[in-house]
Amino acid sequence: MLDEAKLTAAVTGLTEEQVRAIVREEVERAAKRDPASKHAAIIASKGTLDWAYPPLILATTAAASGMETHVFFTFYGLNVIHRDFERKLKVSPVGNPAMPMPMPMPNLVTAMPGMGPIATQMMRSMFSRKNVATIAELLDSARESGVRLIACQMTMDVFGYGQDDFVEGVEFGGAAAFLSHARRAHTTLFI
Amino acid sequence: MLDEAKLTAAVTGLTEEQVRAIVREEVERAAKRDPASKHAAIIASKGTLDWAYPPLILATTAAASGMETHVFFTFYGLNVIHRDFERKLKVSPVGNPAMPMPMPMPNLVTAMPGMGPIATQMMRSMFSRKNVATIAELLDSARESGVRLIACQMTMDVFGYGQDDFVEGVEFGGAAAFLSHARRAHTTLFI
Amino acid sequence: MLDEAKLTAAVTGLTEEQVRAIVREEVERAAKRDPASKHAAIIASKGTLDWAYPPLILATTAAASGMETHVFFTFYGLNVIHRDFERKLKVSPVGNPAMPMPMPMPNLVTAMPGMGPIATQMMRSMFSRKNVATIAELLDSARESGVRLIACQMTMDVFGYGQDDFVEGVEFGGAAAFLSHARRAHTTLFI
Repeated sequence: MLDEAKLTAAVTGLTEEQVRAIVREEVERAAKRDPASKHAAIIASKGTLDWAYPPLILATTAAASGMETHVFFTFYGLNVIHRDFERKLKVSPVGNPAMPMPMPMPNLVTAMPGMGPIATQMMRSMFSRKNVATIAELLDSARESGVRLIACQMTMDVFGYGQDDFVEGVEFGGAAAFLSHARRAHTTLFI
Repeated sequence: MLDEAKLTAAVTGLTEEQVRAIVREEVERAAKRDPASKHAAIIASKGTLDWAYPPLILATTAAASGMETHVFFTFYGLNVIHRDFERKLKVSPVGNPAMPMPMPMPNLVTAMPGMGPIATQMMRSMFSRKNVATIAELLDSARESGVRLIACQMTMDVFGYGQDDFVEGVEFGGAAAFLSHARRAHTTLFI
Repeated sequence: MLDEAKLTAAVTGLTEEQVRAIVREEVERAAKRDPASKHAAIIASKGTLDWAYPPLILATTAAASGMETHVFFTFYGLNVIHRDFERKLKVSPVGNPAMPMPMPMPNLVTAMPGMGPIATQMMRSMFSRKNVATIAELLDSARESGVRLIACQMTMDVFGYGQDDFVEGVEFGGAAAFLSHARRAHTTLFI
């Protein structure tokens, strides 16, 4: 005997065409959510003043736009989160003919004692004159906006650093920890 | 009373199994489209002749294979799109023991006045002998193939550049503009 | 006349709500599989001992966690897979004020003949004292775990290398080959 309730349910059954339309709509909606677009994984490997800016500027900008952001500090990049970063982050004009100098100088001159400190001071004032945040301010801003700062345990070991050598809020991990975040992130950068 | 038309529609209703098969097919099709695979976001941060090649070669290759490609020039990378890039892009053998030199030389020799221009000229002829496109040709090719060349406003400010200092076709933006493209792209590179 | 079998089938027809629930479940399952999370595409462009570690450590770590990993060696990075890599991979303290040295030295001193070999030897022993794998061991491990090592044909040509100049297992390709893998990978790094 025909059950009228079941028949009513049946009557609402969708055709293949209708199902495909629903699927495409849902898939498109999922693509817009795209979880990988909300993650950024950055490696900071350089230990000079100039190269300390890019990872911190990109990380704080990413966090400001709602991205879950990890910065993995390794090799010379450990300088950036060292308690003594103000003293450790220097620039050298030697071997970088792209560094803007007040006047062109041959490498032998830029290699002379004293040119490193002058170049470092020059870069600091170039940035501060233009009201770019200092490294200290960028580190604060990174922590306040939830950027995770991770020191590479292997290179800490190699360079003889202990956990106490770093600024507050730093976590510790290895390349596998970095990759477990990076493999879910569209934005992955080695700086 | 049973509506025969409604019943006919009902009869075409799909089972859960059939619906799941359709869904998997559509999801797989969507995965193959994978919009993130059609975007590349590259940061060009170095200002020497050797490091000017990789962002431009990768960007033009990406564009040639149909990818929507943005290159964000920042820090020393602004040299690459400076009107005067031919003169600004130099190489220095100092501090790069990996640079192939006609004969091994100690750093003190490579630091001597005159070695920079020799190394720059040597690199130019190494590339031209092998018919690699020049930087000028790569920039043309990038613009012709729709690569978007974006100068970083913050570092333009810091280094004292104005919009007129750059080659035609350059756009201007910040780290947030870069990230809004990068977060939708599988290929994201910091060079 | 109503066909009882067809009606029974019809009765199992799903409502739009039920279809949407199935779709969301399947889409979520597909997102978890996320094929791009299983691919890593790394460019190794530096030819010094210190910068030979990051691409090989990241590649072997990625492979160990099941990722299909390609490393594309280009420019100075060709040194890393050169048969003679032990001799070619050096470090120079010149122009890198971030390199840890036993004592601070002005650039003029680090530029003196003999400082390069001392820095190279110092770095080798820093890594071996901490039981970090050597470059030779990392290359072996990469090949054993299925990491694909690809030499850039264009820069091989420019630097005058032939296919015989490289260690066993190296493949040869161009920027397009790199990008065809990178565009399907979440983890893409230029080192």
